[in-house]
Amino acid sequence: MALDGMTSAIAEIKDQLGDRLKTSKAECEAHSHDEAHAMTKLPNAVAYPKDTAEVSAIMAICTKYACPVIPFGVGTSLESQVIPIEGGISIDTSQMRQIIAINASDMDAIVEAGVTRNQLNDNLKSTGLMFTVDPGADATIGGMASTRASGTNTVRYGTIRENILAMEVVLPSGKVIKVGSRARKSASGYDLKNLFIGSEGTLGIVTRLTVKLHGVPETISAAKCVFNDIDDAVNAVIMAIQSGVPMARIELLDEMQMRGMNIYNPDFDAPEKPHLFLEFHGSAASVAEQIETFQHIATDHGADGFAWANTTEERNRLWAARHNAYYAGRALRPGSSSLVTDCCVPISRLADCIAEAKVFIADSGLLAPLVGHVGDGNFHLLILVEPENSDEWARAKNLSSRLNKLALDYGGTITGEHGIGVGKREYMEAEHGEAYALMRQIKTTIDPLGIMNPGKIFTT
Amino acid sequence: MALDGMTSAIAEIKDQLGDRLKTSKAECEAHSHDEAHAMTKLPNAVAYPKDTAEVSAIMAICTKYACPVIPFGVGTSLESQVIPIEGGISIDTSQMRQIIAINASDMDAIVEAGVTRNQLNDNLKSTGLMFTVDPGADATIGGMASTRASGTNTVRYGTIRENILAMEVVLPSGKVIKVGSRARKSASGYDLKNLFIGSEGTLGIVTRLTVKLHGVPETISAAKCVFNDIDDAVNAVIMAIQSGVPMARIELLDEMQMRGMNIYNPDFDAPEKPHLFLEFHGSAASVAEQIETFQHIATDHGADGFAWANTTEERNRLWAARHNAYYAGRALRPGSSSLVTDCCVPISRLADCIAEAKVFIADSGLLAPLVGHVGDGNFHLLILVEPENSDEWARAKNLSSRLNKLALDYGGTITGEHGIGVGKREYMEAEHGEAYALMRQIKTTIDPLGIMNPGKIFTT
Repeated sequence: MALDGMTSAIAEIKDQLGDRLKTSKAECEAHSHDEAHAMTKLPNAVAYPKDTAEVSAIMAICTKYACPVIPFGVGTSLESQVIPIEGGISIDTSQMRQIIAINASDMDAIVEAGVTRNQLNDNLKSTGLMFTVDPGADATIGGMASTRASGTNTVRYGTIRENILAMEVVLPSGKVIKVGSRARKSASGYDLKNLFIGSEGTLGIVTRLTVKLHGVPETISAAKCVFNDIDDAVNAVIMAIQSGVPMARIELLDEMQMRGMNIYNPDFDAPEKPHLFLEFHGSAASVAEQIETFQHIATDHGADGFAWANTTEERNRLWAARHNAYYAGRALRPGSSSLVTDCCVPISRLADCIAEAKVFIADSGLLAPLVGHVGDGNFHLLILVEPENSDEWARAKNLSSRLNKLALDYGGTITGEHGIGVGKREYMEAEHGEAYALMRQIKTTIDPLGIMNPGKIFTT
Repeated sequence: MALDGMTSAIAEIKDQLGDRLKTSKAECEAHSHDEAHAMTKLPNAVAYPKDTAEVSAIMAICTKYACPVIPFGVGTSLESQVIPIEGGISIDTSQMRQIIAINASDMDAIVEAGVTRNQLNDNLKSTGLMFTVDPGADATIGGMASTRASGTNTVRYGTIRENILAMEVVLPSGKVIKVGSRARKSASGYDLKNLFIGSEGTLGIVTRLTVKLHGVPETISAAKCVFNDIDDAVNAVIMAIQSGVPMARIELLDEMQMRGMNIYNPDFDAPEKPHLFLEFHGSAASVAEQIETFQHIATDHGADGFAWANTTEERNRLWAARHNAYYAGRALRPGSSSLVTDCCVPISRLADCIAEAKVFIADSGLLAPLVGHVGDGNFHLLILVEPENSDEWARAKNLSSRLNKLALDYGGTITGEHGIGVGKREYMEAEHGEAYALMRQIKTTIDPLGIMNPGKIFTT
């Protein structure tokens, strides 16, 4: 955009926000990259609105000057969603962290977009309720809504999509709308709530959310177990899901990922073989029954070394290790950048898909630990790349591309939970065909100036 | 629209469909009303396409002549969704009833839009799987998607929204798109699937759907129990939901509804007092545990006369009675028309909402039996009205209006599952505010000529 428009936009936002509009190099650098560190680009300024009214005022100014706007939570996206690839104003929601209401009797909570998942759960401790969606990072709930995030217990409790009842959204014009309601279901008109969920900040900015809570189960039991062969581990998962065991968590980690975990935290000290990390929720009797069924299935598939985490501390240690899998994987090659795959396939194709992924990894000659929310049919390769090595980047992209094509051939999707951002735009046509053009039409309808997070989901 | 345009459109569709394009009075009359019989309007013709390609051809012709198109399943909508209020071509999907695939290992099925819920379940009998969404009528799955339907076991298994993985949709232009995939989750671009679900045929025609299936539980136990006071029944439900009992079904029927059931089927012979109809799913041990917890709660709230349905036949009899509640309610006043309310509120407000509804009914002086999917916070009044009595219609509308406003005041919605159609358009502004204008913008983007089911959700 023209420089003088940008200067005017920044000046007018400064009038509104004062010190909470920052242009220092340090601030801009902090908002120039995401967790994947695959690219960087500086915003022109960073705004810290305190409430919806301020977000609305900023949006009206940015519309006036056709100035790009990039919503920013805590910057843990993995597909460059928060990177201002065309410059503009990064809108950081970290001063919008109020928990507005916890409605224990309806099992919902109303939060500002900048509230993080751990912050909400810390505030729920006395209620017997929990917020379940848990991507690896302590992401903001607004950010999770924007990328349609999920986590380790999605197999039981759903993705963020199934856990949002309503949202407040600021449109590019500055207009504020409400989508959804606190009712558990509705047939009232178009489902705008789900249109904004997963739209990666390209249609508007989510400022407030009503989320579902779930009762903390009477009994929780977690475990890890070891397999000699990854194929056996995947087939045990498939059998458990098909048998209807209501697994709360069932996570796969391959031998390379386990090696990374041992490097990242030497106390972890686990066998460097394929593992499943498990959790069972329910009444005491139900959990006992689930465990019996699962152990029977797993043992039939050669599982060994069941280690039970019976105290809260032991469980927290197990799941902290899983949530840090991304950082542990990177520990296999310090200083590397990464390209993360995220395909999700029907569960009957999962074993084949992972077996082929292993062949593709070998062909690439790169290190690529594998972790997966395998109960959903979703798994990640963390392809580790030397930042300046263009040959390695080319091989990583080829590996990712082969895997994405395979997932589509299997009736799946190129992204189960990370979103499209910049890196996956090139697969949108292959996944969606004519529907991709319709998405663009909707984008143009809601954001005619193209100021909302330009270059994400669509090329500009 | 101009008569010669309509004549040309019909002639061109006849060229494509031959005998499967009907213009007889009987055919047009059969497509002129829905289940509520609140209004009638004849289409100009009825088309019976055999496949997606034929639907696409019809749509291209209708776009050419700007001819209205009204998708029609089995005509069991309750908000006039299938009524051609501006004339046009009714597209009846009854010749699109193929079950394309049952993927037992992925627990999904691919069906044409005209497949009904009972037809699918009949075809699942040997698989140990079931399709769960069960509105009262044996609706088509395409129709259920279009109105975002739900049913008696939504409290456990979700609405149609949570049970559709993917759809094929014909756009007004005739273009065919695919939305969603067979993967259990996806973060790939805008959620067009959920935009079409609940859009009541105003954006396109659903021709094929991939739906989720669920394992038939090892143990199923159903029961009915009686309360002296409806307030006690509702509070028992609220307590059961808040206690985390995973009820498969928990349905409320008031004393007036029970009277209707006894008239409709004298063999039913139940006490004319508020009832809950219940179902518990799980392993034998889990069902026993659920029943114990629920009975404890219900007895504390004065429940009595537990009658258990232990055989499949007894269970089927109980749920057939519930599914026929609409017809049973009408039996209280033979020959009447009806206005059905459908509000859904946060569960903590349900007892207050039902208590106030009872006051509104008394004020109206009309008969209005009450049934509800109360575990979801959703209940219906079937307001019975003498068809030609304008005073009664006015009182019925006033009753409905008072209740809808109350539901919105309580943070709920005016429709949990029936949709907007014609009769609830006037509440859209109150429920959605500025978001209603955004819905209209999207409608105009996808259907610029306004040919898709005109007059539904929006006034034209």
